[in-house]
Amino acid sequence: MRNLNQQTITEAVIERFADTPSPRLKKILTCLVQHMHDFAREVELTEDEWMQGIEFLTRTGQKCDGNRQEFILLSDTLGLSMLTVAMNHDKPAGCTEATVFGPFHVECAPHFDNGADIANGAEGEPCAVRGTVRGVDGEPVAGAVLDVWQADATGHYDVQYEALDAPRNRGVLVSDSDGRFSFRTVAAVAYPIPVDGPVGDMLRATGRHPWRPAHLHFMVRADGYETLVTHVFRRDDPYLDSDAVFGVRESLIGEWVPQPGGGYALEFDLVLNPDGKAPLAGNATTRISQKAGA
Amino acid sequence: MRNLNQQTITEAVIERFADTPSPRLKKILTCLVQHMHDFAREVELTEDEWMQGIEFLTRTGQKCDGNRQEFILLSDTLGLSMLTVAMNHDKPAGCTEATVFGPFHVECAPHFDNGADIANGAEGEPCAVRGTVRGVDGEPVAGAVLDVWQADATGHYDVQYEALDAPRNRGVLVSDSDGRFSFRTVAAVAYPIPVDGPVGDMLRATGRHPWRPAHLHFMVRADGYETLVTHVFRRDDPYLDSDAVFGVRESLIGEWVPQPGGGYALEFDLVLNPDGKAPLAGNATTRISQKAGA
Repeated sequence: MRNLNQQTITEAVIERFADTPSPRLKKILTCLVQHMHDFAREVELTEDEWMQGIEFLTRTGQKCDGNRQEFILLSDTLGLSMLTVAMNHDKPAGCTEATVFGPFHVECAPHFDNGADIANGAEGEPCAVRGTVRGVDGEPVAGAVLDVWQADATGHYDVQYEALDAPRNRGVLVSDSDGRFSFRTVAAVAYPIPVDGPVGDMLRATGRHPWRPAHLHFMVRADGYETLVTHVFRRDDPYLDSDAVFGVRESLIGEWVPQPGGGYALEFDLVLNPDGKAPLAGNATTRISQKAGA
Repeated sequence: MRNLNQQTITEAVIERFADTPSPRLKKILTCLVQHMHDFAREVELTEDEWMQGIEFLTRTGQKCDGNRQEFILLSDTLGLSMLTVAMNHDKPAGCTEATVFGPFHVECAPHFDNGADIANGAEGEPCAVRGTVRGVDGEPVAGAVLDVWQADATGHYDVQYEALDAPRNRGVLVSDSDGRFSFRTVAAVAYPIPVDGPVGDMLRATGRHPWRPAHLHFMVRADGYETLVTHVFRRDDPYLDSDAVFGVRESLIGEWVPQPGGGYALEFDLVLNPDGKAPLAGNATTRISQKAGA
């Protein structure tokens, strides 16, 4: 341990985890240290670059508060969030695919009856949304709890407004005896992720745009089914092929159909995976929503 | 880009860096994303574990302030700091080896004449330190600027005391015409790194102790030589083989010799690497000291 060099130090650090009580933690830290050291060796990291990395991570942590989770945004923009979702929700064909949770969910959103307007005055063109919650075998799922949330016409979620005292464009609904749900909201538009923090610095330094294609968030929970966290994306959005957080799936693209009297209508069915239908490495959606939400 | 899976997403993220103006940044981010995704796939990271990682990094950033740099402490305890030092200071044989900078350096410490007492009332047994600054070819280096700092007998640096208004156990000296330096301080003792933050949580979860063997910090700057950042470690310290930050080098171990009248004496020569004597990937010591210091 007294004459470690740039090769032997990795093994020495890993040996230090020998007494870790949790085998899972030991495996994760061992793999993490190996990859972190390999990364530093492969790029021949300089001390100046190391310090820039320390400062970047520090600023990222300090940008976080009750309404902002900059580390989730960093994970999203580096594709780690979508990779984790993909690994943990490998479902049978026919199920609605999962996508990133994002940082704008809120626990305890207001409850609404089917057909209600959840916009609560949010800016935007009106949009009527409806669909059916089914299991992958076609059975309607009654009593499914649907959490929905989206940005307004300016591209902001309610939690991004400092002075707003009531939720907008978010709500909780329950599917009826035929599995159907419906609500009114505003039409989704493309918006940039927040760029006033370290993640914005990273996007600018790499010539990347911050835009997410227009979408509507759903989290659907029902007894006997895997919880579904997904979005429906708006067809013809110019950012479908370059989503800043890599969340688009072809199967999640829906039609915002212009209506004769103005506004739009969207119909989209949500197909759930019965518990145990596919091996899952874990499903921590409930916990994520409690911690990541505003 | 619409049907990424857990394999193809990595290439898609890397392609997004195609327009990065800096080739160096592009290389670093490409390698970072590849290793981060490989890590997640290898351990089959669950969403719950991902969220625990987000929370850990957030708490680490929020633990940082003007007197505490928890991300440096994390880098130190995972061996990344020492790996970076080793890669960037691969010197000719005979030079004093470099080791980790640590988070307790302070810019603009008070200047002292040789022979002065830098302790300024710090608790501990007295210790007289002296040595010569030389180049690797044996030439004495006159006018070298030596920044020295260390903990007191309780294992704390001055910046860890909230109520202290003057520096203790730290100072700047200049070597004389023969390259010699000398000062009085207190005897170094082993101490634990701060464990009241996320790094402490990591050490406890892995059954690791937080101790660093007793040491005295030096940063030596002289025209025409590579800046040296190092410690001298106290022989017979029980933690020499298990330094919490992997900083010990056999060549950096010195003798704290008990004196007949009480206290100790330490003699240690510091051998500098002339500029250009070995390929260096970078030397950002000055910048590090400005940013990391309290």
